[in-house]
Amino acid sequence: MAFDTAAVKEVLDKVRAEGRAALTAPEGRRICEAYGIPTPGEGLATTEDEAVSIATDLGFPVAMKIVSPEILHKTDAGGVEIGVADADAVRQAYRSIIANAKAYDASATIVGVQVQQMLGGGQEVIIGATTDGTFGKVVAFGLGGVLVEVLKDITFRLAPVDRDQARSMLDGIQAADVLKGARGAEPVDADALAGVIERVSALVTDFPEISEVDLNPVFATGSGATAADVRILVETGEVAPRVERSPEEILASMRRLMNPSAVAVIGASNEVGKIGNSVMRNLIGGGFEGTIYPINPKADEVEGIKAYKSISDVEGDIDVAVFAIPAKFVAGAVDECGRKGVGAAVLIPSGFAETGNQELQDEVVATATKYGIRLLGPNIYGYYYTPSKLCATFCTPYDVRGGVALTSQSGGIGMAILGFSRTTKMGVSAIVGLGNKSDVDEDDLLTFFEQDDNTTCVAMHLEDLKDGRAFVDAAQRITKKKPVVVLKAGRTDLGARAASSHTGALAGDDKVYDDILRQAGVVRAPGLNEMLEYARGLPLLPTPKGENVVIITGAGGSGVLLSDACVEAGLSLMDIPPDLDESFRKFIPPFGAAGNPIDITGGEPPSTYEATIRLGLEDDRIHSLILGYWHTIVTPPMVFAKLTADVVAQARAKGIDKPVVASLAGDTEVEQACDYLFEHGIVAYPYTTEKPVAVLGAKYRWARSAGLLGQV
Amino acid sequence: MAFDTAAVKEVLDKVRAEGRAALTAPEGRRICEAYGIPTPGEGLATTEDEAVSIATDLGFPVAMKIVSPEILHKTDAGGVEIGVADADAVRQAYRSIIANAKAYDASATIVGVQVQQMLGGGQEVIIGATTDGTFGKVVAFGLGGVLVEVLKDITFRLAPVDRDQARSMLDGIQAADVLKGARGAEPVDADALAGVIERVSALVTDFPEISEVDLNPVFATGSGATAADVRILVETGEVAPRVERSPEEILASMRRLMNPSAVAVIGASNEVGKIGNSVMRNLIGGGFEGTIYPINPKADEVEGIKAYKSISDVEGDIDVAVFAIPAKFVAGAVDECGRKGVGAAVLIPSGFAETGNQELQDEVVATATKYGIRLLGPNIYGYYYTPSKLCATFCTPYDVRGGVALTSQSGGIGMAILGFSRTTKMGVSAIVGLGNKSDVDEDDLLTFFEQDDNTTCVAMHLEDLKDGRAFVDAAQRITKKKPVVVLKAGRTDLGARAASSHTGALAGDDKVYDDILRQAGVVRAPGLNEMLEYARGLPLLPTPKGENVVIITGAGGSGVLLSDACVEAGLSLMDIPPDLDESFRKFIPPFGAAGNPIDITGGEPPSTYEATIRLGLEDDRIHSLILGYWHTIVTPPMVFAKLTADVVAQARAKGIDKPVVASLAGDTEVEQACDYLFEHGIVAYPYTTEKPVAVLGAKYRWARSAGLLGQV
Repeated sequence: MAFDTAAVKEVLDKVRAEGRAALTAPEGRRICEAYGIPTPGEGLATTEDEAVSIATDLGFPVAMKIVSPEILHKTDAGGVEIGVADADAVRQAYRSIIANAKAYDASATIVGVQVQQMLGGGQEVIIGATTDGTFGKVVAFGLGGVLVEVLKDITFRLAPVDRDQARSMLDGIQAADVLKGARGAEPVDADALAGVIERVSALVTDFPEISEVDLNPVFATGSGATAADVRILVETGEVAPRVERSPEEILASMRRLMNPSAVAVIGASNEVGKIGNSVMRNLIGGGFEGTIYPINPKADEVEGIKAYKSISDVEGDIDVAVFAIPAKFVAGAVDECGRKGVGAAVLIPSGFAETGNQELQDEVVATATKYGIRLLGPNIYGYYYTPSKLCATFCTPYDVRGGVALTSQSGGIGMAILGFSRTTKMGVSAIVGLGNKSDVDEDDLLTFFEQDDNTTCVAMHLEDLKDGRAFVDAAQRITKKKPVVVLKAGRTDLGARAASSHTGALAGDDKVYDDILRQAGVVRAPGLNEMLEYARGLPLLPTPKGENVVIITGAGGSGVLLSDACVEAGLSLMDIPPDLDESFRKFIPPFGAAGNPIDITGGEPPSTYEATIRLGLEDDRIHSLILGYWHTIVTPPMVFAKLTADVVAQARAKGIDKPVVASLAGDTEVEQACDYLFEHGIVAYPYTTEKPVAVLGAKYRWARSAGLLGQV
Repeated sequence: MAFDTAAVKEVLDKVRAEGRAALTAPEGRRICEAYGIPTPGEGLATTEDEAVSIATDLGFPVAMKIVSPEILHKTDAGGVEIGVADADAVRQAYRSIIANAKAYDASATIVGVQVQQMLGGGQEVIIGATTDGTFGKVVAFGLGGVLVEVLKDITFRLAPVDRDQARSMLDGIQAADVLKGARGAEPVDADALAGVIERVSALVTDFPEISEVDLNPVFATGSGATAADVRILVETGEVAPRVERSPEEILASMRRLMNPSAVAVIGASNEVGKIGNSVMRNLIGGGFEGTIYPINPKADEVEGIKAYKSISDVEGDIDVAVFAIPAKFVAGAVDECGRKGVGAAVLIPSGFAETGNQELQDEVVATATKYGIRLLGPNIYGYYYTPSKLCATFCTPYDVRGGVALTSQSGGIGMAILGFSRTTKMGVSAIVGLGNKSDVDEDDLLTFFEQDDNTTCVAMHLEDLKDGRAFVDAAQRITKKKPVVVLKAGRTDLGARAASSHTGALAGDDKVYDDILRQAGVVRAPGLNEMLEYARGLPLLPTPKGENVVIITGAGGSGVLLSDACVEAGLSLMDIPPDLDESFRKFIPPFGAAGNPIDITGGEPPSTYEATIRLGLEDDRIHSLILGYWHTIVTPPMVFAKLTADVVAQARAKGIDKPVVASLAGDTEVEQACDYLFEHGIVAYPYTTEKPVAVLGAKYRWARSAGLLGQV
């Protein structure tokens, strides 16, 4: 679309030159025209006669509104009349609007009265844009009236949006059916409405000085969308451009952080219980194969390794320095690191912004920036990268290698990640503490994990984003290839309050986060446990090839609950075609239920599970299987687990790889069976019908938004 | 309220005598008048002149509608005109309505034209009543237009409702704020609106032959509520009264089932792997102290106990007969049981209604009814009652006694209950399989558990209710004293479909279930795992004395997630008063955050946890504690667990007993710490911030609806 940017610039320059934050209605209209946003026919009248003439041209009824740069709340000023029906009424309205305006603010400049075509019919919607503290320019769409104001039924996207994204916003509200012609109304012209959203998003992107746009209401009919009222606000001060690092630059520094040849430990100690001792033990105990340089002015060696008084005494190159010294010494040591050419400083110490000491943190950041050192932390437990056998942390070593990279903003959550990983033997590539995020943040890590062949899935706990736009950019790239799970803490108003007192971060409005994380292709976990379970399960499940999910269950009762869970997780139970139904029926008792769930009934031998699972895997119309197992003497838990693993392995050997998840109902032996199934690539849980389905649902959410199912 | 029931009876008798299902508008109006439900001023005109005269009396504008018993869809017939503005327009409307009606249905009886006061302004709402398959008469309330039709924003209650219950319906919709004057509108007269709901509920209760009432729209203003359109439908056939057992009768039979002196096993067997053998072994192995009579025509003894060829050969009394014989022999054996005076038959066999063999099931029920035998099942795993050391099941014995009684409609879910109980050492009073529920159902068991001192909490998995009203009656009684958790399977449309194919039960609309279960005081679990965790946790938590919840956490990150979870669970974080804040601050580092969550920070020694938890317990303005633990070297997991258990025990010794739940973030040692805490009455989970808060939330939901917090 070609826009008249010159016209917009002219209006904005004038407004800003005059030190105004708000545009007048005619200015707003001019901007809409320049960007092809339809507004009602109108004219500016400076006399009664002019008002009558304009109204006659437009056709009655008309709306009339005061135009004055000083009067923003026109209704409050008695400066609005609607439904003005004929010439006499126009005259009367003109007089009363002018009189009211003068009474409201005697010093206001009265430019005139705007006479506007009355719009009506169709559906009232709101289209807007705002400048979010985290994400920058975002566009918003909602239905007018009660739906937006009482039910908060509104949706956001990062600007700019293309036409498809804009159209997705129409489906992004709860009351979407209203736009499609619910209750016998005419469906709105979705393309015209999406066009207005797209144009607003382009406008605020092209002109960052526009801080807010409100088109409220926009009348959407079957043949178009017209903005009846336009409100535009601008920044009166300077608008600073965003500073960005190139992906190449980020990658180079992250590679050095994750695959260091030499690591120094500043504050390395022989005293058990001290952080500087724990870090040394973990580096050694974790099996790090590069060089370790303990730095300690008073020791000759630490944990059996030659120590140095200062980092400048070290002869070789140092990629990473892990800090285990009090906060007040950090800035000085970072300066030494800079002079030594260290690539990254891992700042375990606390006592910075999180305790109110922002100044000290700023000093450290300034020093690091001077030398181009990347900072991880401060206020973190450290980090793990298993392919490098690197455990640069005061926790305990972890060595189960696998595809999941996990990060956390909070140390407590980091410890929960570690404990959960160990107890479930979760294969991990990285665990990274981000803490205060004075420098390295989620987008740096996503940029690294995107190209890291050791990582197949990322899970992140975060409380805020320092640069939401950089996060979305990085997330949109990686999620095309690998799922990213995000646990956003401070989801709720109450939670957001706690986030704010904890980190000093301004927690964004959750609805903005929710919509934009989805736009970024991220799978949001509703809670900590779900984040961990998704992280554990997603790498095991192959990407499904389509939406057809089939439940095979030995317990009808589980089938019902698994169906409930499918709806909850946004999964589609396949409508089984008659020939396939017939094929399943061959294996199950006559009183079993085919259809979907397929209820093979409880008393069946292993061969029935085996035959039906095999059929489910081999029929290529089925894309995913959910198994419901019921513990019986005829088919004990481990028999079920082994036969299932075998059938799945046989199918894989034939090149058939579908997601298979299982819910096991039975006595405690089902726990061992679930462990066995997990070890064989099948996501399986005891005593729950919800969890396995939720993990499958998460895989589908990712696959859909990555465009891997052929449908978004 | 005194109603003119005679007037209603006269109308209904006439309608039913004429074989009509629908009342005319004047009939509907007469019924509304008899029950004090305001309707617009109106009159019936049979001539143009009459129409003009009525309209003039009412005041213009008016609405005009055809009155004809044959024309139900008046708008379709061109039989409605609204906004009729003056006398001429009334004449014209009269003519065209009559002409349209004749054209629509030449044979229709035209009674005349109804001339009605036009209502407007205020808020359009819908008030109705319907006859639900499960619950009988229910009343419904919602907002008119898009909100009800697109967003399904509607709420239900079992009829009759009192004024308070009716008012709770106004708050039971999402868009409740609309009624309170959102967007500058006048708040509606809530009492008037509740009055209409109450009257409609009384009407359908007094006259069960009314199958449906639709007041749509009702105009609610600041000073009243008027039903603009009334639609009433009646049953044309006979309306059978409900058959009820008295609680005393139910109790007597349930006590005999749960505390039998003698149990017969019909089909007892020595052959390992047979159900008749498993049941015998479990009765013996479970330690049942009453008499066991194996019944087997071919054995002299079974599992070392003297066997009988037939139940009639047994000399002593038999309270319970457990059936382990094929379906086809069941009816005959029940007849023998009847002649022997057996109290209850526990029907393990399948092959009845669940496989389509309803006839066989009906025959068994008829036989049992003849003798007054209560039937459990068929198609079940049996039942456990630990106070009687009774394991009458083919599963395995379970002997951890405790306060939870669990029931399940499905065998698979029963096995999950058993496995979960065993692995978590959950203290159980009963586990009961209900299967096809040919006789004994949830309300029988609730009636027993209500007065059973061994039971402090009930958890039920159900797919349908045979008699929703009996369930609500029983639930309303017991939930005043003990929490009842319900997992209703078939929650979703998809789930409901599966329920229907599984049990042949007509799964009710979930919204009706949801509202009415809440009205019954039941805590609904969203899934199987939650049902089990609530069952495990609720009996451990004392009933909170108020809404003030405080989070004490060693990890700020957990604090944020715990706050999120509180909002999710409907809990209120206490606003800490300044003096209490000051008291907490004495124990925590200066950079820790008081307020709520209270962030004691991560590096603190056991004494900090101890002092803050003690303060939280001892200050009587605080009603519940949520603890967030972060694994450190200074305060390892078991140290935290023991100190917490000690502080809680000390408080209990002083008579202070508050709910305490904990989330433990750390390495795998936190799992052992959680087990320890559970054993000491503190609900604690590793690697999740959501679960402990959800359990506390469930306790609060119950306590609120039982009126134990002084607020509903």
